[in-house]
Amino acid sequence: MTDPDVPGGSPTEERVAAHPELSRRALLGAAAAGTAGLVIGGLTGPLLIASPAAAPTEPAVPEPTVHPFFGAHQAGITTPVQDHLFFAAFDMVDGTDRRDLERLLRDWTAGAARLTEGLQVGASGALAGDAELPPDDTGEALDLTPSALTVTIGFGPGLFERNGVDRYGLAAARPPELERLPPFKDDALKASSSGGELGLQVCADDPQVAVHAVRNLARIAAGRAGARWSQAGFGRTSRTTAGQHTPRNLLGFKDGTNNILSDDPDGLDRDVWVARDDGPAWLAGGTYLVLRKIEVLIEDWDQEPLSSQQTIIGRAKGSGAPLSGGHELSAPDFEARVGGALAIDRASHVRLAHPSNNRGRRILRRGYNYVDGHHPDGRLDAGLVFISFQRTPGQFIAIQRALATDRLNEYVRHVGSAIFAVPPGASAGGYIGETLLG
Amino acid sequence: MTDPDVPGGSPTEERVAAHPELSRRALLGAAAAGTAGLVIGGLTGPLLIASPAAAPTEPAVPEPTVHPFFGAHQAGITTPVQDHLFFAAFDMVDGTDRRDLERLLRDWTAGAARLTEGLQVGASGALAGDAELPPDDTGEALDLTPSALTVTIGFGPGLFERNGVDRYGLAAARPPELERLPPFKDDALKASSSGGELGLQVCADDPQVAVHAVRNLARIAAGRAGARWSQAGFGRTSRTTAGQHTPRNLLGFKDGTNNILSDDPDGLDRDVWVARDDGPAWLAGGTYLVLRKIEVLIEDWDQEPLSSQQTIIGRAKGSGAPLSGGHELSAPDFEARVGGALAIDRASHVRLAHPSNNRGRRILRRGYNYVDGHHPDGRLDAGLVFISFQRTPGQFIAIQRALATDRLNEYVRHVGSAIFAVPPGASAGGYIGETLLG
Repeated sequence: MTDPDVPGGSPTEERVAAHPELSRRALLGAAAAGTAGLVIGGLTGPLLIASPAAAPTEPAVPEPTVHPFFGAHQAGITTPVQDHLFFAAFDMVDGTDRRDLERLLRDWTAGAARLTEGLQVGASGALAGDAELPPDDTGEALDLTPSALTVTIGFGPGLFERNGVDRYGLAAARPPELERLPPFKDDALKASSSGGELGLQVCADDPQVAVHAVRNLARIAAGRAGARWSQAGFGRTSRTTAGQHTPRNLLGFKDGTNNILSDDPDGLDRDVWVARDDGPAWLAGGTYLVLRKIEVLIEDWDQEPLSSQQTIIGRAKGSGAPLSGGHELSAPDFEARVGGALAIDRASHVRLAHPSNNRGRRILRRGYNYVDGHHPDGRLDAGLVFISFQRTPGQFIAIQRALATDRLNEYVRHVGSAIFAVPPGASAGGYIGETLLG
Repeated sequence: MTDPDVPGGSPTEERVAAHPELSRRALLGAAAAGTAGLVIGGLTGPLLIASPAAAPTEPAVPEPTVHPFFGAHQAGITTPVQDHLFFAAFDMVDGTDRRDLERLLRDWTAGAARLTEGLQVGASGALAGDAELPPDDTGEALDLTPSALTVTIGFGPGLFERNGVDRYGLAAARPPELERLPPFKDDALKASSSGGELGLQVCADDPQVAVHAVRNLARIAAGRAGARWSQAGFGRTSRTTAGQHTPRNLLGFKDGTNNILSDDPDGLDRDVWVARDDGPAWLAGGTYLVLRKIEVLIEDWDQEPLSSQQTIIGRAKGSGAPLSGGHELSAPDFEARVGGALAIDRASHVRLAHPSNNRGRRILRRGYNYVDGHHPDGRLDAGLVFISFQRTPGQFIAIQRALATDRLNEYVRHVGSAIFAVPPGASAGGYIGETLLG
């Protein structure tokens, strides 16, 4: 790293000496680039990149978490849910061909893999290279840790065929299930938060790291794909490992209690990963991502008495326990009665969404809260970026249809919708999408 | 805390036993409510609320930071800058009178003081109280720590007089300096992010804690004041203590290097706090808050070569050192030359904004990055929520006028603007605004 235009001296080196905490990224870069032996661990689960040279001066700082980008499945699905989301949907630029798409996916793979390790994108990053050319990296994450960043790439229905045109020779490869979601009762979808030919689910523990990733991947896509919409989220509303506590959504309730967890390989194979026999072959080991932007009518909800809120959800607000009793992780007893009435209401959310009400269908949820400011009428513009992964979109569709009589519907409004086929992971040297395009 | 509607048992207690990390908030509540001896420290600077009962089971969790709400000055000005912002501007409801305003400020004071300590708002919080009434607290922060929350309350010009009407008998108390900011070159202000009769600057290390505070304070205001606009921010772009490292804005540059720091009482008295002789008396110990929502034309900026970016800013992108040399904290030498040319360009941001170019005027900055998604044309909708505190608005106005020839203007656009007089702090038992209304 050099600092052009600064005469006499090397401010970068002085900076590192004056602020030892800022050397982490540089050391991580050196470790990942030149000392492969430091990177240990398998292709699944988080691994820690050790930076032993920095340890003596940084005793109190925990090692940053780096999730491997490459693997059998893409990262960001069973990965322990990070604190922040920045989801971006893209459309391909008119006039691009299959080769452009392939190159874009190769470039995104290379860029995402570097970002995941906490490296700058491009050969020269934000500071080196030709001072007369735009930097490869935009620089706002220079001093930040990898922050458990994951980038998950998906393909929307329009990538395979748009208005009857097979732009990329992919129409025959489209899984029949990959189509725009059907209309649901009470949909109020906006084009400005729906659809997309390519989807990037970017999650990180630092929102600036997530924003940096989307910004730089969008920059890499210039001339080939452009952003259609994007949505930030915070306060993960699910858990994907048994060790994560269950967070709360903006209804004030725990969310994600009964999620499919990463330590349940049978459950993942049954409900999340596309099997080879499911077809198409290119999607084996992949999954389907459904995103619904669900606005919560916050002020209406906040006017409901606690007892009513709990009846609607079917769980206790404090503990998250089902209203049939027990604790948060107790199985709901849908037959239990209190004074003759069902303890868990027939139209409660937990009952209608529960696998026992849906022929055993389950989905892996990975949602986030969002706040987009206030509406002009003074109401909070906020809700849930619902994201789920499933072996087939039919799982989500069936559950969402079962929610048609959900009493919660009075307080929510689906304003965005998107679906993506998420191809399997890639090996180092390969690229996400190679099973489709290769 | 009880869980109504859950027959047979006390799921809350089971929850605490099963998830010891969830007991922190309950313990904090108990400590703050009943054991005043645990709360130690003066009225300025952060203090840690000890929760010794929890310590044995939570060795790795750092004690949460609690900034005192009460004090000579309001919190959230010199307080070490937290990671997240949620700013909300309110207008008083038509037909309200001075008594309504006073009661609102008393209620906001009580609510904000509780939230700051990590407590739920209201007498009964989110879970207790009458199950047939709406809960006092909305609940989404139940399991979260205080997260260094601060709430800073300000009064906009319209509170004193609106359309020539003196609704609250305050017209004579309006400081002449408290008026809508004058137009500046290249303003592109939107009503949807400008103005406001009351302002709440809410900062916290957890965005959900900040959102929870605004949501519940807005709820408390119902019928008296309604939200006009709000804006979330992340990645603090300033530092207010010497111990905080300098973060980066979305230009990729370090921001806030030359800020007024909390350990500079002379500087604060000279440039930030309104003195008794400044008038009006009710504002002594207070300050003026200026907010500018500054969109960055990200894609244009990202096309600039590194050398050009650095010339425009006047600093090295990597180290933050002025282009006259040295390190980040070196004083810029505006006379230094490199090969005959000025090292720091005449139209560079650092030169035009520097106190030496502004008769020594300085302001305390407390800005945040923001991302509002993407524009319909695919450009990132992002930039800086610029917030500054100053003894008189004239400091900001003069500096902003000096920036009229700033080369950076080509890449930014001011889309929001607001100004608030920030009254001094209150003592426990008093309320923010009592010097004006009392």
